Amino acid sequence: MNDLKQYLTARRSAIDAALLAALPGPPACPANLADAMRYSIVAGGKRLRPILCLASAEAVGGDSALAMPAACALEFIHTYSLIHDDLPAMDNDTLRRGQPTLHVVAGEGMAILAGDGLLTEAFALMAREPRGDDSSLVARKARVIGIVAAGAGTAGMVGGQAIDLTGGPLDADGLRGMHARKTGALIRASATAGAVMGGGTDGQIEAIDRAASEFGLAFQIIDDVLDVEGASAELGKTAGKDAAAGKSTYPALYGLDISKRMASECLDRAAAALASMNLADSRLLQIGRWIVERSN
Amino acid sequence: MNDLKQYLTARRSAIDAALLAALPGPPACPANLADAMRYSIVAGGKRLRPILCLASAEAVGGDSALAMPAACALEFIHTYSLIHDDLPAMDNDTLRRGQPTLHVVAGEGMAILAGDGLLTEAFALMAREPRGDDSSLVARKARVIGIVAAGAGTAGMVGGQAIDLTGGPLDADGLRGMHARKTGALIRASATAGAVMGGGTDGQIEAIDRAASEFGLAFQIIDDVLDVEGASAELGKTAGKDAAAGKSTYPALYGLDISKRMASECLDRAAAALASMNLADSRLLQIGRWIVERSN
Repeated sequence: MNDLKQYLTARRSAIDAALLAALPGPPACPANLADAMRYSIVAGGKRLRPILCLASAEAVGGDSALAMPAACALEFIHTYSLIHDDLPAMDNDTLRRGQPTLHVVAGEGMAILAGDGLLTEAFALMAREPRGDDSSLVARKARVIGIVAAGAGTAGMVGGQAIDLTGGPLDADGLRGMHARKTGALIRASATAGAVMGGGTDGQIEAIDRAASEFGLAFQIIDDVLDVEGASAELGKTAGKDAAAGKSTYPALYGLDISKRMASECLDRAAAALASMNLADSRLLQIGRWIVERSN
Repeated sequence: MNDLKQYLTARRSAIDAALLAALPGPPACPANLADAMRYSIVAGGKRLRPILCLASAEAVGGDSALAMPAACALEFIHTYSLIHDDLPAMDNDTLRRGQPTLHVVAGEGMAILAGDGLLTEAFALMAREPRGDDSSLVARKARVIGIVAAGAGTAGMVGGQAIDLTGGPLDADGLRGMHARKTGALIRASATAGAVMGGGTDGQIEAIDRAASEFGLAFQIIDDVLDVEGASAELGKTAGKDAAAGKSTYPALYGLDISKRMASECLDRAAAALASMNLADSRLLQIGRWIVERSN
């Protein structure tokens, strides 16, 4: 586990440096907009999506450097989704990752634009980098842009947010479907984008997609568990908020013990998917375990 | 001019059909989100950006059908920008194209998501279509995604909105720079994207880019003129609003007559740019004139 911690620390620091380099700045980007985007990007977070993206590129034997632009783009998109989700018209959160949300410090209008800017720059970045005219590289980039857009779009993340916004209690299938879109789709896109950039075979990409789908579900179950258990410091947001808002959660539907077992079973299925393509020895499964054990 | 009107009418009807076909729908996209996106897309508008995109593909001797996905993506992006721009935290407009704005009919949260959805689906569409593995086609698509993302991003449209949001009076250079980003960048991207999809040479693409830059400036000058002259029915929005909001405008800086002459001079420069690459006989210049003469 120490080995994994070192790996994650090293990766996070490389990702943070790449994110800062990829952020637009003056004079091309107006200073107030650049500041707003940077505020939310440097606020931190686990960098789960870029880490998964890079690890997937490595898992298929590729060069993770080729996946770094997509990794940064995915963090841009994740961050934009948090900025818009925190707006008064959406979840109305004033605290995120232990800091005031962007609309609190920069105003709602600038928060909307910073989110729009991060989403758009994510695609600009993937179209621009890695540089090169090689037709195989260009084909991978174009495919990855499609994967990321689909994961972030109306059949994925934005669709999940629309279901969440509609409100009302969900049954087990409805809850699973909502989370599969809202959180799961971008986590899957992160892993498959990395596998594509790394030059994985269709079989490898498909196995990694299935494993990432299980990671995404486990991630959400544990998020709900942590919300109930009040690990406010860990989440950096107000604990118990989901329950107080009357939202459907895994602990509410299944109880805490069964919820934790469900998350563990997700990992078993992910392990089987990875093993089917001899990918079980990669970092991916360790990262999946880290997702589930992050409360410890 | 009748010939142009027929051309525009035929093009608009093909574009409207393609837009409807490109819009996501249930079950992949939640119904309420799909409805919100469709509401703003079918609300109409001149379809200037897709028309420019298709006409540019033709001007360089290409098949405009290859440019239709990018044309629709550009209208998705234009429409998302209007939805977000109309929000209470931005321009706070309740009327657009003669109809209630989306946040009035669907709520602010859904309007934010519908905008996010249109922006994301624009990139999904350009990555997906035109279908085919041909490396020349894939390279054109990847290049166009980069052009559109740059035009819509922080150095382009979103950057212009951030400058506009900051408020305060602008001098002539500041006003021109703000509009070059806010309106001009996406109009330029529309024309160059079409020229790239149509297989234009670098020289043709560059000439079309310069002409479109002049069209974009003329468009904005005339928009300001119409705002003053109160052509409310033509604009479908509240007349005199810019002046009332204390915003810098061309008529405020230069007066109405000089503003109109400036718009006309833009067309002269556009004609020269197109003529330099033997593109003056294309539809492009007629479309530029239509932009300037739309109040008549």
